[in-house]
Amino acid sequence: MEILSEAILTNVINKRPAISHKGTFGRAVLIGGNQQYGGAIMMSAEACVKSGAGLVTVITQKDNHAPLHARLPEVMVVDWEDEKLIFQVLESATVILIGPGLGLDEHSLKLLKIVLSLQTKNQWLVIDGSGISLFAQEALSLTHPSHTVFTPHQMEWQRLSGIPIEQQNEQTNATFQQKLQANVIVKSHRTEIYTIKESYHCPLGNPAMATGGTGDTLAGMVTGFLAQFQNKSDAICAAVYLHSYIGDFLAEDNYVVLPTTISAALPHYMQYFSNKD
Amino acid sequence: MEILSEAILTNVINKRPAISHKGTFGRAVLIGGNQQYGGAIMMSAEACVKSGAGLVTVITQKDNHAPLHARLPEVMVVDWEDEKLIFQVLESATVILIGPGLGLDEHSLKLLKIVLSLQTKNQWLVIDGSGISLFAQEALSLTHPSHTVFTPHQMEWQRLSGIPIEQQNEQTNATFQQKLQANVIVKSHRTEIYTIKESYHCPLGNPAMATGGTGDTLAGMVTGFLAQFQNKSDAICAAVYLHSYIGDFLAEDNYVVLPTTISAALPHYMQYFSNKD
Amino acid sequence: MEILSEAILTNVINKRPAISHKGTFGRAVLIGGNQQYGGAIMMSAEACVKSGAGLVTVITQKDNHAPLHARLPEVMVVDWEDEKLIFQVLESATVILIGPGLGLDEHSLKLLKIVLSLQTKNQWLVIDGSGISLFAQEALSLTHPSHTVFTPHQMEWQRLSGIPIEQQNEQTNATFQQKLQANVIVKSHRTEIYTIKESYHCPLGNPAMATGGTGDTLAGMVTGFLAQFQNKSDAICAAVYLHSYIGDFLAEDNYVVLPTTISAALPHYMQYFSNKD
Amino acid sequence: MEILSEAILTNVINKRPAISHKGTFGRAVLIGGNQQYGGAIMMSAEACVKSGAGLVTVITQKDNHAPLHARLPEVMVVDWEDEKLIFQVLESATVILIGPGLGLDEHSLKLLKIVLSLQTKNQWLVIDGSGISLFAQEALSLTHPSHTVFTPHQMEWQRLSGIPIEQQNEQTNATFQQKLQANVIVKSHRTEIYTIKESYHCPLGNPAMATGGTGDTLAGMVTGFLAQFQNKSDAICAAVYLHSYIGDFLAEDNYVVLPTTISAALPHYMQYFSNKD
Repeated sequence: MEILSEAILTNVINKRPAISHKGTFGRAVLIGGNQQYGGAIMMSAEACVKSGAGLVTVITQKDNHAPLHARLPEVMVVDWEDEKLIFQVLESATVILIGPGLGLDEHSLKLLKIVLSLQTKNQWLVIDGSGISLFAQEALSLTHPSHTVFTPHQMEWQRLSGIPIEQQNEQTNATFQQKLQANVIVKSHRTEIYTIKESYHCPLGNPAMATGGTGDTLAGMVTGFLAQFQNKSDAICAAVYLHSYIGDFLAEDNYVVLPTTISAALPHYMQYFSNKD
Repeated sequence: MEILSEAILTNVINKRPAISHKGTFGRAVLIGGNQQYGGAIMMSAEACVKSGAGLVTVITQKDNHAPLHARLPEVMVVDWEDEKLIFQVLESATVILIGPGLGLDEHSLKLLKIVLSLQTKNQWLVIDGSGISLFAQEALSLTHPSHTVFTPHQMEWQRLSGIPIEQQNEQTNATFQQKLQANVIVKSHRTEIYTIKESYHCPLGNPAMATGGTGDTLAGMVTGFLAQFQNKSDAICAAVYLHSYIGDFLAEDNYVVLPTTISAALPHYMQYFSNKD
Repeated sequence: MEILSEAILTNVINKRPAISHKGTFGRAVLIGGNQQYGGAIMMSAEACVKSGAGLVTVITQKDNHAPLHARLPEVMVVDWEDEKLIFQVLESATVILIGPGLGLDEHSLKLLKIVLSLQTKNQWLVIDGSGISLFAQEALSLTHPSHTVFTPHQMEWQRLSGIPIEQQNEQTNATFQQKLQANVIVKSHRTEIYTIKESYHCPLGNPAMATGGTGDTLAGMVTGFLAQFQNKSDAICAAVYLHSYIGDFLAEDNYVVLPTTISAALPHYMQYFSNKD
Repeated sequence: MEILSEAILTNVINKRPAISHKGTFGRAVLIGGNQQYGGAIMMSAEACVKSGAGLVTVITQKDNHAPLHARLPEVMVVDWEDEKLIFQVLESATVILIGPGLGLDEHSLKLLKIVLSLQTKNQWLVIDGSGISLFAQEALSLTHPSHTVFTPHQMEWQRLSGIPIEQQNEQTNATFQQKLQANVIVKSHRTEIYTIKESYHCPLGNPAMATGGTGDTLAGMVTGFLAQFQNKSDAICAAVYLHSYIGDFLAEDNYVVLPTTISAALPHYMQYFSNKD
């Protein structure tokens, strides 16, 4: 298992091409946020925009549109009941995130099934939070596993893999990843990443980050990185590493690190590493 | 009567355990905010999240969801008409706060009765603002007094205890606390705390804090501290002391200390005291 | 005509009494904000809260509640259609502001008439913006002129006084003030104040403040100062002077001074002058 | 083709006249923002207010009012279904912007036709985003071409001019501008401006600005500059130059430059250049 280091950031976060436009940096589509958990998709969206995705559309329950826009006019919004528009928006996506605050009811499941059925071979898909729980519970299948990333915390990983938390280790996790054939980020106080070729350990992170929304923020960052960076496996690792790197820095002065403060710091830290060799 | 000092902060606010997750720091459920007083529960929620509670759910009148989320996507929200979901959310709570901006009408009373009847012996309950007025007016009873905290200002304490403001002193207050068997924070320019074993005096605080929302912020802090710290009596004292400590610092440069500025400063001050011996 | 100086600030903005509570600093009730002009009452509310009024309630069209609370949970809100609650809130007011963004239609006029008819001799009333236009157009009468402040810009003053802008000067203005018997703040690039006993000239202010909302902010400050300071004539002068004083300071670094930045600076500047002799 | 330099900023951004009021700096009316793209008009509005327009009214789909006001109480809002009020507001406008987030449906087209038919010879009109696409698709005509500015990106310019992106160059662009007789800002990594008399090249800008909302912000700045500065051709050039100038400065420390951070910096940069000779 490879231990991640700052090298992953300097490798992935390069200077942007001088001749480019917003489309160059990808179209991210984020799906989640029911009435109870709307804040989750808002936090994912902030992370995605501030990590540099070119265009971000959020498909969410309508009550979430106003507070999302009040915080982040940079996103576009779609009512998650508007299937026609959802189909249209998904078609042009570079990367799709589904799950933060999605909930577990019929409509949530329907949206997950739509996404799984429509994913093209050129699109990346990130499945987080209740998206993972639904996927496990309904025994769904992936269309393009190698272009899919699951971002479970340990309990969600147990639901997905059947491996009890106390038996989750490099070997059991890697074995199940081989069965899934998808990429997996197992979040814990020391997050691990399992890809088709390799597994990685993130040595950073701290308990000040143990608060609601930290995972939603990571999911948004992974999505933003996949939207714009070409080596997808490295992009995933870089997002995980940077999330904890910023969290560690903020924890020096904060007893609890609010997830939105991680997102706020993204443009600065990414610029710092893009300037480093 | 013991006079509180900085020692209460260094004792209570310890470094977080390295191996932990958001559940480690408790599930807080906050109930309040009708149409007129919605801002109160928003301020409590900010204080609760920023004092480090692991997961925070706010049960409030639906019109308050959007502005609350616009300020604080870190919380989950529940419509206070949705009884089924309220029951479910209350069941998993570590600590419950009811009262900020709750109002005095039938529905408010119904919510208070639900909370009182459902409180388990492992759950802590904080009753603030109109929750106290309703409790007094309807002569309600506590289910677990020793796990309950009242946070009245002097007029609310008069309503609850029957002691006229001008006769409120250490002896009369302590006598009524013995009858109640609950913990009481009597807020004034010099706040006092009455617990089952001891009473405390907070020597800090200043008139720049005399503005709407200061009490709602304290209630949110008490809730956040009870959610994560094990010695509950000390946790209550630490929340009171830190609230005034930050308020005194901010008053050096502010003629009026907006309650939300106290909450904004919480992660920094808590980190400062967690590093101190 | 007396030229105002910093002395008005050091005289009015004194240290707050150590033994006090939020009620000590007054209850302000602000009325205004229809669908089109809702931002006006939001800006008045920010100025009023941040200038130190103890409790602030905003009576406004319902669509304005969410954005107001998203910015300022410190206020209470009342739907301006809810007459029963309006009567109740007005009864306990120390000072009432009506006019910012009020509009000119039937309902706006009805609200103005309610306020004029209910004002008690202990309450101060500030009439701003469309409140002034309606008052002039409908030829309404004041209940307690000596406890009333009009805050017209030059065109509104023309409507109220009948004096064409080009003929507005100390003498014509003072003459009409004597007829009104109310206090008047005539806003222009050099604002003047006419009270029953004296008239004042504010030597400060600058063209970076010539932007929508500057007047709404002043109206909120006048209201906040009247709520908490005892010498009402001086309180009015101090609010006018401080508004321009902060505006001048901000204009050193800003081509346009957004009104909300004046309000944000209030707690700091008021503290500065409260410390000065 | 003239290469723009800082001289355009020092020439255009002069000290404001000492004797002035908000009307002196123009009345801007902004139209756009359907349910999906509401954020676009919010970003235009922030740029317009913060670049110093005296009074700004935003005509947009009603769901956008609350988040817009939560960010920017300085604007007035009009429901884009309220034709009577739209006519009234347009009548008093100094400059009108239509297009950011407008969308392409029937109602959007109707609004565009209203604006084109009502534009008076003293009013300036800026057409952006979907406004350009609709104009091209419906083969509409301008009422006052010399007082009109189009702000297309390269694909929109292709739609409007029929010139494929790869054939867009100074000569082809200028030729079509002569046919249009309107002013055109062709946005790309090096934006060009075509006016009736001259064409200009902006040497600034960077790929960190390639993100959703950058163009909406520029459109708002152009509108704000036209509202207050007398030499309209220079005002357009100055808005383009300053937008990239600030973007370059922010890119030194930010991997992605959020459009709202450009707007936030406007008052400071404009003041800096107003002080320079």
